[in-house]
Amino acid sequence: LPTKLPHTGTTIFTVMSALAAEHGAVNLGQGFPDFGADPALLQALTDAMAAGHNQYPPMTGVPALRQAVAAKLNSLYGAHYDADRDITITAGGTQGLITALHACVGAGDEVLIIEPAYDSYDPAIRLAGAVPVGVPMTADYRIDWAAVQAAITPRTRALVLNTPHNPSGRVATADDLQALAAIAEQHDLFIVSDEVYEHMVFDGAQHESVARHPALRERSFLVSSFGKTFHVTGWKVGFVAAPPALSAAFRRLHQYTVFTVHTPSQHALAAYLADPAPWQALSNFYQAKRDTFRTALAATPLKLLPCEGTYFQTVDYSAVSDLPELDFARWLTTEVGVAAIPLAGFYQRPQERRHVRFCFAKREDTLAEAARRLVAGL
Amino acid sequence: LPTKLPHTGTTIFTVMSALAAEHGAVNLGQGFPDFGADPALLQALTDAMAAGHNQYPPMTGVPALRQAVAAKLNSLYGAHYDADRDITITAGGTQGLITALHACVGAGDEVLIIEPAYDSYDPAIRLAGAVPVGVPMTADYRIDWAAVQAAITPRTRALVLNTPHNPSGRVATADDLQALAAIAEQHDLFIVSDEVYEHMVFDGAQHESVARHPALRERSFLVSSFGKTFHVTGWKVGFVAAPPALSAAFRRLHQYTVFTVHTPSQHALAAYLADPAPWQALSNFYQAKRDTFRTALAATPLKLLPCEGTYFQTVDYSAVSDLPELDFARWLTTEVGVAAIPLAGFYQRPQERRHVRFCFAKREDTLAEAARRLVAGL
Ligand SMILES: CSCCC(=O)C(=O)O
Ligand SMILES: CSCCC(=O)C(=O)O
Repeated sequence: LPTKLPHTGTTIFTVMSALAAEHGAVNLGQGFPDFGADPALLQALTDAMAAGHNQYPPMTGVPALRQAVAAKLNSLYGAHYDADRDITITAGGTQGLITALHACVGAGDEVLIIEPAYDSYDPAIRLAGAVPVGVPMTADYRIDWAAVQAAITPRTRALVLNTPHNPSGRVATADDLQALAAIAEQHDLFIVSDEVYEHMVFDGAQHESVARHPALRERSFLVSSFGKTFHVTGWKVGFVAAPPALSAAFRRLHQYTVFTVHTPSQHALAAYLADPAPWQALSNFYQAKRDTFRTALAATPLKLLPCEGTYFQTVDYSAVSDLPELDFARWLTTEVGVAAIPLAGFYQRPQERRHVRFCFAKREDTLAEAARRLVAGL
Repeated sequence: LPTKLPHTGTTIFTVMSALAAEHGAVNLGQGFPDFGADPALLQALTDAMAAGHNQYPPMTGVPALRQAVAAKLNSLYGAHYDADRDITITAGGTQGLITALHACVGAGDEVLIIEPAYDSYDPAIRLAGAVPVGVPMTADYRIDWAAVQAAITPRTRALVLNTPHNPSGRVATADDLQALAAIAEQHDLFIVSDEVYEHMVFDGAQHESVARHPALRERSFLVSSFGKTFHVTGWKVGFVAAPPALSAAFRRLHQYTVFTVHTPSQHALAAYLADPAPWQALSNFYQAKRDTFRTALAATPLKLLPCEGTYFQTVDYSAVSDLPELDFARWLTTEVGVAAIPLAGFYQRPQERRHVRFCFAKREDTLAEAARRLVAGL
């Protein structure tokens, strides 16, 4: 078969989840909660089915959900998205991301990604016919704007931003977005902004959405996910917000790639979004989990890196082992009984560092058991 | 924006559904039922959510659903699909189709499509980097194998089969599949087989799946849809069955394009498939609707074409109007109050014929009201 992704294997998330299951490890690898969603949200889906919402929704998404999204973005970020024109409901963040990339880049284009980078960016860019160009973050996982500037060529057409950042847990600052805006304007770049962790920022920090910055908003596809925000990663519903010309290009592709998205889930989410409390409470909810987990890990030789957002805690294990990251993550899973994600999975080229990522979107007892094993085993 | 689909507008289904809604027309355009799904299926989804199935499923799909699919295909068609290796759950038929095409064709390849052709084939092939080559059916909507043979060039790499055929309602025969097998073997073609109407064949005819024909099965991606079979088109869950090398290529792309599919729906469908009665009853169910609708339309000047399968009835309206198909469909929607799909939407080039398609997956009262309007208005 003439494969389009010759150098691509199975995603690191699938690999580590399978290994965790095989060895009965506590799975802090793949990013998903091990606790239930709000029963009110589940009830809303049941209600939507009972109300007969089981057939194709409009291609762009259920109007009430698009309206709720536009209202939230506009009030949070001072944007002016139009629900009918600028919001499209997607089959999760991944589909939003790949479709946005297909809408704005093609053969001969280069797309900058900030490494470590979520593992679907690279194949998504390649499938769009373009070339991914990795720009390393600084040693403490900040975006290196000089390196971004230096990576630009006449063929650079877009940049993938991700904030809050997976896997590092860093949150981009207003200064970061200003630097990005200056570069994007100078070189006329599109921005695909992966903001699926937008409601998980800690210690009073503010999420800097591209929607908050007019100079970026007009050239950006904002990608987000209800699965992350409402503890239903398996529902696979997200959205893309983009100005009219970008949304039009996005939808032209969307209609032939998935066409539409799970109708009853869309109605359920629309109803659930009427109350802002659930997403407004999310940062505090995860900050408490972060603090519990960090406190427990302080008793291990693992060095905790800063965690400003997301539900991921990255650690430096060089005091424990000199194994490369993938080998260490496998050893940790099979021997210590805790699955993690090696940061190597987020780079194109081999790395020198000794970093793995834990997901703390877990029940207290899960985090306690993981910590117990890590304290005992390291 | 450097669009990848420069000649593509909004899908005809979206256009006609919107026009129908705007004018209060009975919507016999877009293919979806206007009646409810089995309450047992809806309850199964509620049960799956209550059982905590709301997070990412395995990338390839929920094992119980893959097993149910493999068991059904193997028993129905004498195939030997392995649930773990050969079945992948998709976000509906459309996503299965485009991903299958991306898995087997690329730049420089030609892909044959039989026209009239479902409107996503052409853009899906173009997005994969290949060139769609339309092969017209015969005047009575049978596949013209001589024309297929004549359309083959050294660059032909795949053919998209669709049986039961949308929009014509034709069902491919065993002879058709033998002719296809001979051509596919001679020219080493991949087959992407759209069988989403597999359980809607009438008058005792048998659905000839590629899975039933070993020479085809080994080079085919079989695409189907639970939404069509179980009256939940809005759930957007389907599957692709393919031999190991093809499934491996499919999954490599699938994991980066949608990654996974709505978890609770997959569990619900797995439970629901334990009883074969619902899909076994489907052909009779739709045959009765077909007969009701055809009987009612006999009182109009519309000429009914044969309907051997699917839930679509195509008619020739040349005794009524000389308008081109899209104009007639618009007129029918706005003036007579019944929406239909112009077959022109299924071709690349303008057509001389005067055919539109009605969907009869509707309640008795809906079909009666549509017939009343058609009898009165034509
Ligand atoms: C799409 S599976 C992985 C979930 C995730 O976002 C992560 O673990 O980084
Ligand atoms: C995907 S929308 C159209 C539904 C359908 O298959 C049809 O009407 O032909």
